Amino acid sequence: MSTATALEVRVLIGGQWQAARNAGSFSAVDPQTRAARPARFPISRWEDCDEALEAAVAAFTELRRMPVARLANFLDDFATRIEGSAEVLVETAHRESGLPIRPRLADVELPRTCNQLRLAAAACRSGDWALATIDTAANIRSCFEALGPVCVFGPNNFPFAFNSVAGGDFAAAIAAGNPVIGKANSSHPETTQRFAELAFDAIQANGLPVATVQLLYRTSHEDGERLVSDPRIGATGYTGSRQAGLKLKAAADRAGKPIYLELSSVNPVVILPGAVAERSDAIVDQYVTSVLMGAGQFCTNPGLVLLIDDPAGRDFVARVAERFGSAPIGTLLSPAVERSLVAGIQTLQQAGALRCAGDATPLPDRCAVPNTLLTTTGRQFLCNPHAFQTEAFGNAALVVMATDHRELIACLEALEGNLTGCVYSANDGRDDADYGPVASALAQRVGRLLNDKMPTGVAVSPAMNHGGPYPATGHPGFTAVGIPASLRRFAKLTCFDNVREPRLPALLRDRNPTGHTWRSIDGRWTIETIGSKS
Amino acid sequence: MSTATALEVRVLIGGQWQAARNAGSFSAVDPQTRAARPARFPISRWEDCDEALEAAVAAFTELRRMPVARLANFLDDFATRIEGSAEVLVETAHRESGLPIRPRLADVELPRTCNQLRLAAAACRSGDWALATIDTAANIRSCFEALGPVCVFGPNNFPFAFNSVAGGDFAAAIAAGNPVIGKANSSHPETTQRFAELAFDAIQANGLPVATVQLLYRTSHEDGERLVSDPRIGATGYTGSRQAGLKLKAAADRAGKPIYLELSSVNPVVILPGAVAERSDAIVDQYVTSVLMGAGQFCTNPGLVLLIDDPAGRDFVARVAERFGSAPIGTLLSPAVERSLVAGIQTLQQAGALRCAGDATPLPDRCAVPNTLLTTTGRQFLCNPHAFQTEAFGNAALVVMATDHRELIACLEALEGNLTGCVYSANDGRDDADYGPVASALAQRVGRLLNDKMPTGVAVSPAMNHGGPYPATGHPGFTAVGIPASLRRFAKLTCFDNVREPRLPALLRDRNPTGHTWRSIDGRWTIETIGSKS
Repeated sequence: MSTATALEVRVLIGGQWQAARNAGSFSAVDPQTRAARPARFPISRWEDCDEALEAAVAAFTELRRMPVARLANFLDDFATRIEGSAEVLVETAHRESGLPIRPRLADVELPRTCNQLRLAAAACRSGDWALATIDTAANIRSCFEALGPVCVFGPNNFPFAFNSVAGGDFAAAIAAGNPVIGKANSSHPETTQRFAELAFDAIQANGLPVATVQLLYRTSHEDGERLVSDPRIGATGYTGSRQAGLKLKAAADRAGKPIYLELSSVNPVVILPGAVAERSDAIVDQYVTSVLMGAGQFCTNPGLVLLIDDPAGRDFVARVAERFGSAPIGTLLSPAVERSLVAGIQTLQQAGALRCAGDATPLPDRCAVPNTLLTTTGRQFLCNPHAFQTEAFGNAALVVMATDHRELIACLEALEGNLTGCVYSANDGRDDADYGPVASALAQRVGRLLNDKMPTGVAVSPAMNHGGPYPATGHPGFTAVGIPASLRRFAKLTCFDNVREPRLPALLRDRNPTGHTWRSIDGRWTIETIGSKS
Repeated sequence: MSTATALEVRVLIGGQWQAARNAGSFSAVDPQTRAARPARFPISRWEDCDEALEAAVAAFTELRRMPVARLANFLDDFATRIEGSAEVLVETAHRESGLPIRPRLADVELPRTCNQLRLAAAACRSGDWALATIDTAANIRSCFEALGPVCVFGPNNFPFAFNSVAGGDFAAAIAAGNPVIGKANSSHPETTQRFAELAFDAIQANGLPVATVQLLYRTSHEDGERLVSDPRIGATGYTGSRQAGLKLKAAADRAGKPIYLELSSVNPVVILPGAVAERSDAIVDQYVTSVLMGAGQFCTNPGLVLLIDDPAGRDFVARVAERFGSAPIGTLLSPAVERSLVAGIQTLQQAGALRCAGDATPLPDRCAVPNTLLTTTGRQFLCNPHAFQTEAFGNAALVVMATDHRELIACLEALEGNLTGCVYSANDGRDDADYGPVASALAQRVGRLLNDKMPTGVAVSPAMNHGGPYPATGHPGFTAVGIPASLRRFAKLTCFDNVREPRLPALLRDRNPTGHTWRSIDGRWTIETIGSKS
């Protein structure tokens, strides 16, 4: 087992906690004190990546021969071990991220993480995710299958639920049958190390190949690009900054390697005049709660509001500004988040946005910036839509006041791809004529369209889409949340044409492999066995 | 209507057959005589692309408001019109491609094309393709939806079935709800023009937006790259050469625009010793028929054979070589295909492959090269696997003779991504121990694994996968053939969260929109209406 003393934290490669071939080291920072954390983590050289890739290929070969139930058992067991170590995980993540222990880490994110692992285990067992499709007349059968080693780069803002060795991408990649090479987020390496320790214990307890889960803490940018484009890699999942993500994307694209990215999103919220008139209080309340929750550090944080510029709209903004001024100031995840938030606010101001609450001056004693509300007009927005869509990741937001419905639609049509878009409209129908064009413009540009609801809750539902058009993600057809669909990112479609029945994967043989796996047989979804008539 | 006199062929933009803003012109060549065809087609300048994009955006806005049945009716009507003009289409394509009128064009490819259009119409009506997924408890609903204008670049080798305004990508893009901008293949512009005329007639007869189908004949490479990366484009489908395809891919990737490519594939066929011993005659016959069919100009042409180097294997090769020498020499599609085939054969020879039938000398009177069979050893292949995987598109093939099973597996592990891979094994079980590792290595590297069957037949089955890992295509999770899966390439996933029921797309409302659309409701595939218990 690793210990967290200076310069001694070990990487997990090929089933060994071993000293990194390192090119330097780093510490995380406690954002509540701005003090460096004691442990020093290695920046791996390419040799570490290369050895991890080699071990992952061997693990993948073994995994392909094992029954899927073993991976499912591992995921369940891992979830139980996480619950058993909840206290230390929560404490570590709290120190590294500044996120509150309760309710956030202990009562929300940790249970969510375990739930995701268990849902992934269930998906792995059932096989429904693979969309098995059988043409009995032609004897052609196809399904999604594991792709090969998956590299997961986790984000800073969910130390548990999107952790590179415990979160959503991890669970999906494993459940689809792939080994994972995790790249820890530099803001919570110790949390990630602890997850990897639990995962590795669960791997050994369940008889999986030792390199099913591996962990590196950091590499150079060049080695990161080399990793995602290596011939031995199956695919990559990345959640993080647009700048770093686009470099990885370019490298993976050049090599023809799938890469699924979640990059940035301002998550527009349109509040139609009827809704403002009807229930301004309730919407102000919902909005402020959503936009300042977790200091605004959610992928689906509603950072852009669009209103009609009338007295009720201006009153709405004044009340939100007042609430911004009086609300507690959350702690940001890291000095890097703070720097990027300050830069984002400055970019918006340079474009002409006016400040009506807060400013971009960090607090001295912890990573934090006052809650900041900016406004601009529809006309200004349309003059420079790119700058006004700068993501100020954190507790800041921009309100666009449009002269009329026509200008509002023009603003929506100038939007880049986003994860979510919300429309609030009156319950009594007075906004209904305006709703259609607004929703139509928005739906084309977002992965998830909401009515009368803020976007920060991302339910782990099979119907969820946590995705959207570029630059929110790299491809508009995939979701990072929502099992079983999220598994299909880490899979290839394989067709078996005239393959002898006993040689087929279990999912495609005549007999339904579980008795309850959904398969599309001759155009009809069924859980039947081929040849049986029920 | 356009007429095909010199310099006068018109492009179809925004519902008008109009003179191109051209930057030069070109003629197709009759490969049966090497003579230029009379009609001259324009090379469009960017202004044509820009106007087509603008019109496509307007058409898309209209299409989104129309019932899907209108698109389905269009596809059916178009198929009927194609059948009504079969004679002239077949004659034109024969002159432009050299492909035989019967059976190929009239009896196989034209019926297949109409069948694809009708299957796409049925998929469009049913909505099954959209994988509607509903979580009733959370009121979250999602499905695939149209993405926006799709650009289709058709290949040279299927003037009908993959034609940019009538083929598989076209049918899939339209059925998913998108307008299409077709870029004709330069080897059969007149065939494509005739299809566009029929499509436009069908558009008018069915009340679709006039720019639902548009046609350009050629652009500069720079404008092609600009087209696929334009903000107004939803996605691109491309089938053609690897070189041109990778340039378009790089441009689209940089802009975050989905592009589906079918690039190149040598389609390895492994014939295990037991199969050679058991039924050499039959396999020689199947192989020669498949590899020389259509002068070898199929995406799934089995251009690479892997055998064990024993007396029976050498005898197999000698018999294939003899058949290559005595078989008729097919006409190639164009001078460009001939040049590329000659270059491909030369590359293989330079790598050390030995010629045992044919050579790379074109015939004088028509586009044709003698049927060419090359051989190499497993050891040589492994020294330079990249060169030995050069696609010699046309009537040429390479046989790799491996010393033993171990070397055979090593060769398979050195393969790049391919569309197909075949394994022939003995019926009596004597190859069964060897089959597993061979099939396992192959399945990871191909989109379709076949047993005891050549790959050139690509059935239009829902279970088909005409796709595969890079560089066969750009992403291993999508298929270009097989309805309804092929439609999902040209779609985005959209989630509706708490959206009021009457505002939902028909597919996601409580009532099943057709009475028989498959939807996944609370984890169960059903054709029920929500709230009904049957």
